[in-house]
Order: sequence, then structure tokens, then C-alpha cells
Amino acid sequence: MAQAIIAAGCAVGAGLAAIAGIGPGIGQGFAAGKGTEAVGNQPEAKGDIMSTMLLGCAVAESTGIYGLVIAIILIFANPWI
Amino acid sequence: MAQAIIAAGCAVGAGLAAIAGIGPGIGQGFAAGKGTEAVGNQPEAKGDIMSTMLLGCAVAESTGIYGLVIAIILIFANPWI
Amino acid sequence: MAQAIIAAGCAVGAGLAAIAGIGPGIGQGFAAGKGTEAVGNQPEAKGDIMSTMLLGCAVAESTGIYGLVIAIILIFANPWI
Amino acid sequence: MAQAIIAAGCAVGAGLAAIAGIGPGIGQGFAAGKGTEAVGNQPEAKGDIMSTMLLGCAVAESTGIYGLVIAIILIFANPWI
Amino acid sequence: MAQAIIAAGCAVGAGLAAIAGIGPGIGQGFAAGKGTEAVGNQPEAKGDIMSTMLLGCAVAESTGIYGLVIAIILIFANPWI
Amino acid sequence: MAQAIIAAGCAVGAGLAAIAGIGPGIGQGFAAGKGTEAVGNQPEAKGDIMSTMLLGCAVAESTGIYGLVIAIILIFANPWI
Amino acid sequence: MAQAIIAAGCAVGAGLAAIAGIGPGIGQGFAAGKGTEAVGNQPEAKGDIMSTMLLGCAVAESTGIYGLVIAIILIFANPWI
Amino acid sequence: MAQAIIAAGCAVGAGLAAIAGIGPGIGQGFAAGKGTEAVGNQPEAKGDIMSTMLLGCAVAESTGIYGLVIAIILIFANPWI
Amino acid sequence: MAQAIIAAGCAVGAGLAAIAGIGPGIGQGFAAGKGTEAVGNQPEAKGDIMSTMLLGCAVAESTGIYGLVIAIILIFANPWI
Amino acid sequence: MAQAIIAAGCAVGAGLAAIAGIGPGIGQGFAAGKGTEAVGNQPEAKGDIMSTMLLGCAVAESTGIYGLVIAIILIFANPWI
Amino acid sequence: MAQAIIAAGCAVGAGLAAIAGIGPGIGQGFAAGKGTEAVGNQPEAKGDIMSTMLLGCAVAESTGIYGLVIAIILIFANPWI
Amino acid sequence: MAQAIIAAGCAVGAGLAAIAGIGPGIGQGFAAGKGTEAVGNQPEAKGDIMSTMLLGCAVAESTGIYGLVIAIILIFANPWI
Amino acid sequence: MAQAIIAAGCAVGAGLAAIAGIGPGIGQGFAAGKGTEAVGNQPEAKGDIMSTMLLGCAVAESTGIYGLVIAIILIFANPWI
Amino acid sequence: MAQAIIAAGCAVGAGLAAIAGIGPGIGQGFAAGKGTEAVGNQPEAKGDIMSTMLLGCAVAESTGIYGLVIAIILIFANPWI
Repeated sequence: MAQAIIAAGCAVGAGLAAIAGIGPGIGQGFAAGKGTEAVGNQPEAKGDIMSTMLLGCAVAESTGIYGLVIAIILIFANPWI
Repeated sequence: MAQAIIAAGCAVGAGLAAIAGIGPGIGQGFAAGKGTEAVGNQPEAKGDIMSTMLLGCAVAESTGIYGLVIAIILIFANPWI
Repeated sequence: MAQAIIAAGCAVGAGLAAIAGIGPGIGQGFAAGKGTEAVGNQPEAKGDIMSTMLLGCAVAESTGIYGLVIAIILIFANPWI
Repeated sequence: MAQAIIAAGCAVGAGLAAIAGIGPGIGQGFAAGKGTEAVGNQPEAKGDIMSTMLLGCAVAESTGIYGLVIAIILIFANPWI
Repeated sequence: MAQAIIAAGCAVGAGLAAIAGIGPGIGQGFAAGKGTEAVGNQPEAKGDIMSTMLLGCAVAESTGIYGLVIAIILIFANPWI
Repeated sequence: MAQAIIAAGCAVGAGLAAIAGIGPGIGQGFAAGKGTEAVGNQPEAKGDIMSTMLLGCAVAESTGIYGLVIAIILIFANPWI
Repeated sequence: MAQAIIAAGCAVGAGLAAIAGIGPGIGQGFAAGKGTEAVGNQPEAKGDIMSTMLLGCAVAESTGIYGLVIAIILIFANPWI
Repeated sequence: MAQAIIAAGCAVGAGLAAIAGIGPGIGQGFAAGKGTEAVGNQPEAKGDIMSTMLLGCAVAESTGIYGLVIAIILIFANPWI
Repeated sequence: MAQAIIAAGCAVGAGLAAIAGIGPGIGQGFAAGKGTEAVGNQPEAKGDIMSTMLLGCAVAESTGIYGLVIAIILIFANPWI
Repeated sequence: MAQAIIAAGCAVGAGLAAIAGIGPGIGQGFAAGKGTEAVGNQPEAKGDIMSTMLLGCAVAESTGIYGLVIAIILIFANPWI
Repeated sequence: MAQAIIAAGCAVGAGLAAIAGIGPGIGQGFAAGKGTEAVGNQPEAKGDIMSTMLLGCAVAESTGIYGLVIAIILIFANPWI
Repeated sequence: MAQAIIAAGCAVGAGLAAIAGIGPGIGQGFAAGKGTEAVGNQPEAKGDIMSTMLLGCAVAESTGIYGLVIAIILIFANPWI
Repeated sequence: MAQAIIAAGCAVGAGLAAIAGIGPGIGQGFAAGKGTEAVGNQPEAKGDIMSTMLLGCAVAESTGIYGLVIAIILIFANPWI
Repeated sequence: MAQAIIAAGCAVGAGLAAIAGIGPGIGQGFAAGKGTEAVGNQPEAKGDIMSTMLLGCAVAESTGIYGLVIAIILIFANPWI
């Protein structure tokens, strides 16, 4: 029974951690929209715009990855079971 | 009974993880709207705009996929049952 | 009784997963509005605008489909019952 | 008693799934407003505007339909009762 | 007693489903406002504006009707009682 | 006792259904504000503006009425008591 | 005891129904603000502006009244006590 | 004991009903701000602006009064005690 | 014991009623900001602006006072203790 | 034990009442920002701007004070202990 | 045991009261931003701008202090322990 | 056991108090953004802008510090343990 | 058992305290965006802009650090275990 | 059993801590969008813009890292198990 409570708590915790993806999702979409707009205005600067956009998104991705890491740890590598 | 508690916890956790899709949904829709607007203004740059938009959306998709992955793991590959 | 708890948990989890559709709904509606505006300004570029809008919406649809998939799995294909 | 718990869970889950309609409702209304505005500015392009608006709304409708489908399945076709 | 739990669950679920009407309410009101503004600017295009507005609202109405349908089913046609 | 649980559930469900009125309230108020603005700018088009505004509000009213209907049904016509 | 549970449920439900007044309150205030602005710009059209504003507010009032009606019914005319 | 449950439910319900005052508070404040701005621009039209503002606020006040009425009824005139 | 439940319920209800002050607080602050801006632009119309602002705030204050009244009644004048 | 329940309820209620300070805090900050902006544009009207700003803030302060009063009453002057 | 319930209730209530600091934090930050902007545009009016900003912030601070006071009272000066 | 309930309540209360930092965080970031913008436009006024920005932020910091103080008191200096 | 309740309460409280990082995260990102925009417009003032941005962010960081401190204290230095 | 409660509490707390990533995700995405826009307007200043953007994002990342640290500590280094 004790193990069941731990496992259920980990499952709910992993689900909560995955919710953190709402932030990067909105933020990266905003960046993508701004990048698309900028490419439409200056197609000749497409390379510079895209590399900036991807670099910014890569940074913003980090907190989403943190959530994924915490969820994976809670499921597969928690030290209690 | 213990297994039932684990399974119920995993089901609720998977549902919570799927909610993370709200963020990419709003963000990608914003990007799509900006891209559509840009194509309407410069139809001759459609290729550049679309590739930028899709690249940006592919990055934004990532956190949604994280949620899907966590949900699938919680349902089919959790190490407790 | 144990099966009932699992089933009830799956039903609530499926409902939560379906809520993820709020994000794509708002985002795609934004894209549709921007596309309609663009067509009104440049009716001669209707084909390009529409294909861009649909491509963007198809990408944004993905997280909504993830929610649907998770809900269907929780109802019909969960490995616990 | 077990069946009652399953049924109550399904009823609440179906209600939660129906809430997903908030997103498409706001999004489609935004599209309708933009379309109405565009028709007011270029009445001669009414056909193009309307077809774009309807196509965009049809795509945005999808996640609302997902919610309806999940609710219907939870009520009439759940495999547990 | 079991029937009472099912009925109470259905009643709460029906109330939740009715909340989905918030989305279409806001969206259609936005469309109505935009339509009124457009008629004020081009009264000679009233017919075109109104038909577009009504068509858009009819589409946006759908998710509200889904909520109504789910609520009615939960009250009068649920297969458990 | 069973009847009391059903009745209490119906009462709470009816209250939740009435909350759906928030959406049409905000939306219709937006439409009314836009209509008032339009009348102030073109008083000679008052008839056209008003009829458009009322038609749009009548459509937006629908989801509010759905909430009222569900609440009334839950109170006076639920098939369980 | 059973009557007490019904009464408590009705009291909470009536309070929830009264919350629906948030929507019309915000919406009508928006309309009033727009109307005041319009009167300030065209004082000679005060009659037309006011009648439009009041008509729009009267429509928006409806969902607030629905909430009042449901609350009153839950308190004085519920068929269970 | 039964009376205590009813009374506690009524007290919480009255508090919820009073929350409805958030909506008119925000809306009337918006109207007051717009009216103040308008008076600052056209001090000679102060009478017309003020009467319009007060009329609009009086209408918006209604849903706040509904909340007050329901709270008072729940406290002093509920038919259960 | 019964009296304790009533008293605790009243205390929580009074706290909820006081939350209604959020609305007037935001609204009156908006009005004050607009009034300050207007005085900065037309210092010669300070009297007219101030009287309008205060009149509007007095009206918006009402729902906050309703909350205060309900809280005071719940604490000092509830008819159950 | 009964006194403990009353006291705990009062403590939570007092905390809820203090939350009402969010509204005036945001509103007065908006007024202060607008006043600062206005002083920056017309330093010669500083006296008039400041007196208007303070008068408006004094009115907006009221609902925050209501929350303080209710909290103080719940702690020191509740008639139940 | 009774004392423990009171103390736990007071601790949670004090935490809730501290949340009231969100409002003044956002509001004062808005005022600070506007003041910084104004100083950047008219550095010669720095004294007038700063004194106005500080006066406005001092007023907005009040509700945050109320929350602090209520929390301190709940911890150190509650009359029940 | 009684001490455990007090301690758990204090821990949750301290966590709630720390949430108050959301407000100053958003507000000060807004001020920092406005200050950065102003420095970019008038680099010669950097000293005046920075001192204003820091003074404003110092004031906005206060409510965050209140939250910290309350949390520290709840953990280390609560008078109940 | 008592120690377990304290530890669980501290763990949840630490998680709540960490949520306070949402505020500085949004605020500093706003500042970073404004700073990036300013550098793009006046690259020659990069040093002044960056130092202002970093100074502002350092101040905004404070409340996030408060949350971290409270969480660390709750985990490692709470005086109850 | 006691250890199970601690572990479950830690798992939920870690999930809550991961949610703090919503803030930096939105903020960094805003910064990335502004940076992309700036690069599109002045491609010759790409180096300066990118270094500013990355520096700002690195600062905003901090609170997300705090959440990760707290979650990791709660899982692997909590002093209670």
C-alpha cells in the first residue's frame, strides 16, 4: 500500500511538471510569429533572422526541458521505490 | 487495491500532462496568423515565410510533444505496474 | 471495486485531456481571423494565403490531437483493465 | 455501488470535456468579427472572404468536436459498464 | 443510494457542460460589435455584413450547442439509470 | 437521504449553469459599446446600426439561454426525483 | 438532516448563480463608458446615443436576470422542500 | 445540528453572492474614467456627459444589487429556518 | 458545536464578501488615473473634472459597500446565533 | 474544541479579507503612474495634478480599508468568542 | 489539540494575507516604469516627477501594509492563544 | 501530533507568503524594461533615469520583503512551538 | 508519523515557494526584450543599455531569490525536525 | 507508511516547483521575438543584439533554474528519508 501512495503521488507530480510546457509554448510561438513577420518584411535577411529566432527559442526551451527532466526522474529514477 | 490507486493516479496525471498542449496551441496559432498576414502582404516571399513559420512551429511543438510523451509513459510504460 | 476506481480515474483524466483543445481553438481562430483579413485586402493572393493558413493550422492542430489520442487511449486502450 | 462510481466519474468527465468548447467559441467569434469587418470594407470580395472564414472556422471547430466525441464516448460507449 | 450518486454526478456534469457557453458568448459578442461598427461605416453594405456576421456566429454557436447537447443527454438520456 | 443528495447536486449544478451568463454579458456589452460609438459617429444610420446590434446580441444570447434552460430543467424537470 | 443538506446545497448554488452578474457588470460598464465618450464628442446626438446604449444594456442585462431568477427559484420555489 | 449546516451554507452562499460586485465595480470605474476624460476635453458639455454616465452606471449597478438582494435574502429571509 | 459551525461559516463568508472590494479598487484607480491625466492636460477645468471623477467613483463605490454591509451583517447581525 | 473551530475560521476569513488589497494596489499604482506621466509633461501644474491624484487614491483606498476593518473585526471583535 | 488547529489556521491565514502584496507590487512597478520614462523625456523635471511618484507609491503601499499588519497580528497578537 | 499540525500549517503558510513575490517581480521587470528603453533613447540622462528606476523599484520591493518577513517569522519565530 | 506530516507539509510549501519565480521570469524577459530592441535601435549605446538592464534585472531577481531561500530553509533548515 | 507520505509530498512538491518554468518560458520567448524583430530591422547589428538578448535571457533563466534545483533537492537530497 505504501508503494502505491508513492507511485500515485509521482504520477500526479509528473503531470504537474509537464504543465510547465505552457510557458515555452506560448513564448516560442510569439518568437516564431515575430520571426515570420520579419522574414516577410526583409526576405534578404532570412539567415540572420532565423539563427536569432532559433537561438532565442533554444534558450526558452530550457525550462520546458526542466519540466520533462523532472517528470522523467519522478517516473523512472525516483529513489523511493 | 494498491494497483487501482496507482492506475487512477496515472490516469489523472496523464490528463494533466495533456493540458500542456494549451501553450503550443495558442503560440502556433499566433505564428500561423502572423505568417498568413505576411504572405498576404508579400506573396512573392511565400517560400521564405512558410519555411520560417514551420521551423518556428516545429520548435514550439516540442513542449507539446513532451506532454504527450509523459502521458504515454504514464499509461503504457510506468515502472510500477 | 478496484476496477471502478481505475475507470473513474480514467474518465476524469480523459475529460482533463480534452480541455487541451482550448489552446488550438483560440490559436486557429486567431489564424483564421488574420487570414480572412488578409484575403479581404488582397483577394488576388487568396490561394497563397489559404495554403499558408491551413498549413499553420495543421501544425497547431497537433496538440489538440494529442489530447484526443490520450483521451481515447485512457478510455479504450488502457492496460490496466 | 462500483458501477455508480464509474458512472459518476464519466458524467463529471463528460462535463469537463465539454468545457473545451470555450476555445473554439472565442476563436471562431474572433474570425467572424474579422470577416465581418473585411466584408464591410470590401463588399465586392465577399465570396472570397466568406470561404476563407468558413474554412478557417472548420479547422478551428475540430478541437470542439474532439471534446464532443470524448463526452459522447464517455456517456454511451465506455467499455467499463 | 447508488442511483443517487449517479444522478448527483450527472447534475454537476451538466452544469459544467453549460459553462462552455462562456466562449461562444464572448466570441459572438465580439463579432456583433465588429458588425455593428462596420454597418455604421458602410450602411449601404448592410446586407452583406449581416449575412457574414450571422454565418460566422452560426459556426461559433456550434460548441455552445455541443455543451447543451451533452447536458441534455446527461440529464434525460444517460444510459445508467 | 438519497433524494437529498440528488437535490443538493442539482442545486449546485444549476448554479454552475447560471455562471455561463458571464460570457454573453461581456460580449453583448462589447457590442452595445461599439453600437453606441457608431451611433455617435453616424446618427443618421441609427436604424441600421441598432438592428444589426440587436440581431448580433440575439445570437449571442443563445448560450446564456442554454444555461438558463439547463438550470430550470435541473430544478423542475429532472427525471430522477 | 436530509432537508438540511438540500437547503445548504441550494444556498451555495444561489450564491454561485449570483456570480453570473460579473459579466453584465463589466459589459454594461464598457457600454456606459463608450456612450459617455460619444456624448462628449457629439452632444447634439445625445438622444440617439442614449437610447442605443440603454437598448444594448437592456439586452446584456438578461443573463444577469437569469442568474437572479435561478437564485430566487433555488431559495423560494425549489420543489424538493 | 441540521440548522447549523443550513446556516453555514447560507453564510458561505451570501459571501459568494457579494463577489458579484467585482464586475460592476470594474465596469463603473471604466465608465467614470471615460466620463472624466470626456469632461476634461469638453467642459461645456458636462451636464450631458454626467447624465449619460450616471444613467449607464445605474444600469450596470443592477447586477451588483442582485447580488446584494440574494445575500440579504439568504441571511434574513431564507424559508428553511 | 452547532454554534461553532455557524460562526466559522460566517467568518469565511465575511472574508469572501470583502474580496468584492477588488473590483471597485481597480475601477476607481482607473478613474483616478484618467482624471489625473485630464487635469494635467486642462488644469483650468479642474473643478469640473474632479466633480465628475468623484461622482463616478461614488457610484462605483456602491458594490464595495455592499460587500462591507454583508460582511458586517454576517458578523454582528446574523439571525442564527 | 468548538472555540478552536471558530478561531481557525476567523483566521482564514481574515486572510481572505486582506486579499481585497490587490484591487486598490493595482488601481492606485495605475493612478500614480498616470500622475507621474502628467507631471513630467506639465511640471507647472504639479499642484493640481497631485491633489487630483491623491483625492482619487483616497477614494480607491476605501475598499482596501473595508478589508482591513473586516479582518480586524474578525480577529479582535467577533461576537462569538 | 484545539490550540494546534487555531495555530495552523492562523499560519495559513497569515500566508493568504501576505498574498495581498501582489497588487501593490504590480502597481508600484507600473508607476516606477512611468516615472523612469518621464525622467528620460524631461530630466530637468526630475525632482517634481520623483516626488509625485513617491507620493503615489506611498499611497499604493498602504494595502500591502494592511496585509502585513493582519499577518503579524494573526501570528503574534491573536487573542485566542 | 499537535505540534506536527502546527508545523505543517506554518510550512504551507510560508510557501503561500512567498508567492507574493510574483507581483514585485512583474512590476520591477516592467520598470527595468521602461528604464532600458529610456536609456537607449537618451543615454546622456543615464544617471537620472537609473536613480529614478532604482528608487521606484526599492519602493515596489517592499511588499516582496513583507512576504519574506512573514515566511521567516512563520518558520523561525512563530510563538506556538 | 508526526514527522512525516511535517516533512510532507514542508515539501509542498517549498514547491509553492518556487512558483514565485513566475513573476521575475516574466518581468526580466520583458526587460530583456526591451533592452534587445533598444540595442537594435542604438547599437552605439550598448554599454549603457546593458548596464541599466542588468541593474534592473538584478533588483527584480530579488523576489525570486526570496522564494529560493524560503524553499531551501523549509527543506534543510526548518527548526521542527 | 510514514515514508510513503513524505515521498508522495515530495513528488507533488517537485511537480509544483517545475511549474515555475512558465514564467521564464513566456519571458524569454518575448525577448526572442523582440530580438528577431530587431535583427530583421538592423541585420548589421546582429552581434550586439544577440549578445544583449542572450545576456537578458541568462538572467531570466535563473528563476527557472531555482525551480529545477528545488525539485531535484526534493527528489534526491531531501534530508528526511
